[in-house]
Amino acid sequence: MDSVHYLGIDVGGTNVKMGIVDANTGKISNFYSHDTDSWRTSGHFMERFGDAIALQLHAYKEVRKVGIGLPGMINRARTVPLEITAIPEIDGVPMVDILTKRFPGVEFFLENDANAAALGEFYFVEDMHAENYIFITLGTGVGGAAIINKKVFVGGDGNAMEPGHVPSRNGRVLERNIGKKELLDLANERRTAYAGKTQLPGDGSISTTGLVAAAAEGDELALKIWDEVGEMLGDALVSLIRILDIKQVLIGGGLSASFDYILPAVQRQLDYWLTPYYKKDLEIRRALLGNDAGLLGAASLCFE
Amino acid sequence: MDSVHYLGIDVGGTNVKMGIVDANTGKISNFYSHDTDSWRTSGHFMERFGDAIALQLHAYKEVRKVGIGLPGMINRARTVPLEITAIPEIDGVPMVDILTKRFPGVEFFLENDANAAALGEFYFVEDMHAENYIFITLGTGVGGAAIINKKVFVGGDGNAMEPGHVPSRNGRVLERNIGKKELLDLANERRTAYAGKTQLPGDGSISTTGLVAAAAEGDELALKIWDEVGEMLGDALVSLIRILDIKQVLIGGGLSASFDYILPAVQRQLDYWLTPYYKKDLEIRRALLGNDAGLLGAASLCFE
Repeated sequence: MDSVHYLGIDVGGTNVKMGIVDANTGKISNFYSHDTDSWRTSGHFMERFGDAIALQLHAYKEVRKVGIGLPGMINRARTVPLEITAIPEIDGVPMVDILTKRFPGVEFFLENDANAAALGEFYFVEDMHAENYIFITLGTGVGGAAIINKKVFVGGDGNAMEPGHVPSRNGRVLERNIGKKELLDLANERRTAYAGKTQLPGDGSISTTGLVAAAAEGDELALKIWDEVGEMLGDALVSLIRILDIKQVLIGGGLSASFDYILPAVQRQLDYWLTPYYKKDLEIRRALLGNDAGLLGAASLCFE
Repeated sequence: MDSVHYLGIDVGGTNVKMGIVDANTGKISNFYSHDTDSWRTSGHFMERFGDAIALQLHAYKEVRKVGIGLPGMINRARTVPLEITAIPEIDGVPMVDILTKRFPGVEFFLENDANAAALGEFYFVEDMHAENYIFITLGTGVGGAAIINKKVFVGGDGNAMEPGHVPSRNGRVLERNIGKKELLDLANERRTAYAGKTQLPGDGSISTTGLVAAAAEGDELALKIWDEVGEMLGDALVSLIRILDIKQVLIGGGLSASFDYILPAVQRQLDYWLTPYYKKDLEIRRALLGNDAGLLGAASLCFE
């Protein structure tokens, strides 16, 4: 018997990626990517987007469910994008209505992309059995999601989980301390003040790749910087854990390459602030879907 | 036509209070209170507790739903108390099973007492129309709950919303900074260091009532102390709002008598940290049920 297939669509500010996803294996077929800008500037974003969907559904006629991940805020009913900074053309557009009319008999599921990526970990990572978990993405910003009972937690008004914007040190929110740009500023600052031996360049040109590589080679300053980042992340996780009563944490995003080097500090903070009720079940893992997280996450919206 | 009636039971460490609640008006009849200790030391807590319920149900035969608020953690299915520090005799006791067997045809609803009190505000406060809100209790500790879509938010494992235990200043959790004892320590400390005119006693004997009264009379030091408390509470609220996407906040508990004096600082912090998306709908109110919050909250578990 054939496996079920879903169409997964990852709408990003740079590219819109889509593909047919095997619900059992997560294998992606008919992968297609189109640059976002040309659809935007055409003045007919929804039509072009719909045309691309039409081609996919034409090639895979058995597909009846389409999951769409969007980079921004969506209404609580998950039918209308509210604030998609990268594609303001679709703000307020009744996307699910429009697509359902154009493709009768096909179901469309909208979700914020971080939420979708979080859910993807449950459906497409083999040994991922937790039905409740916090998902954090480290990158340019610090994003997040919570999965509760295998469902995206939307909170009160639909846009829960902004861990990058909880108060952190120095009168700044978390992502203004450990977002990509800010952590490089921190690294360059620490490098300038550092008198010891280090492979990190002293001319203000430290990169995140270089910072991870140096840590991997045991560079003390690099390890110290990641430790500082981990400490701030750990403190924020404590708030999330206390508010949500969730003990599993997945860390993804481009900067999760630093996972091994931030983990000791994260665990130190959790150990400092939490009680045995939380600590006995606590697990901090690295998210595993990687590059396909967006597309597979979108497809995972079609389950149940 | 008669109104629907529920039996509400507020199980506290000192007293177990119960009464028949009119679902429309919140009027309490047949109020009964029994000290908790004598049932505990009898070695038959559940039997005595059941007897008291039997008398209520005998007097009001039309009552088919009973809501019970418990001061501690409950299992996710809301059938078994897990960790009731004040009454460890009932930890792990299948309370709903036992009561359902003894009273066939009657439905029993268990909930943590802060969660129940939060829900009570929705059902029994006349002009309370928000279906999503954060509820904070200020007292010996700092407790909390979240109501999402008129339901108690239980989080991942059933015990969400511990705002008193999120990281706050000085390496302490929030309630170790602004719980009753801690805020009096703070007040006495500030009093000692204060050279100006104040009606607060300098001998370490400041009381919370005195601190509220002084603030009401415009005492500058008292206002400053409440301001400091409000600032710490405000910072914690920012995390809650960002994580839950809820913009209505109710503040209750014994120390909410200080509401007017902590509010300016709370609002200042929310204004500092939050963006227009949150600020335009933000509302901080005082919880209104007061002394009956526990009993009415328990009864509110019976709705739907």
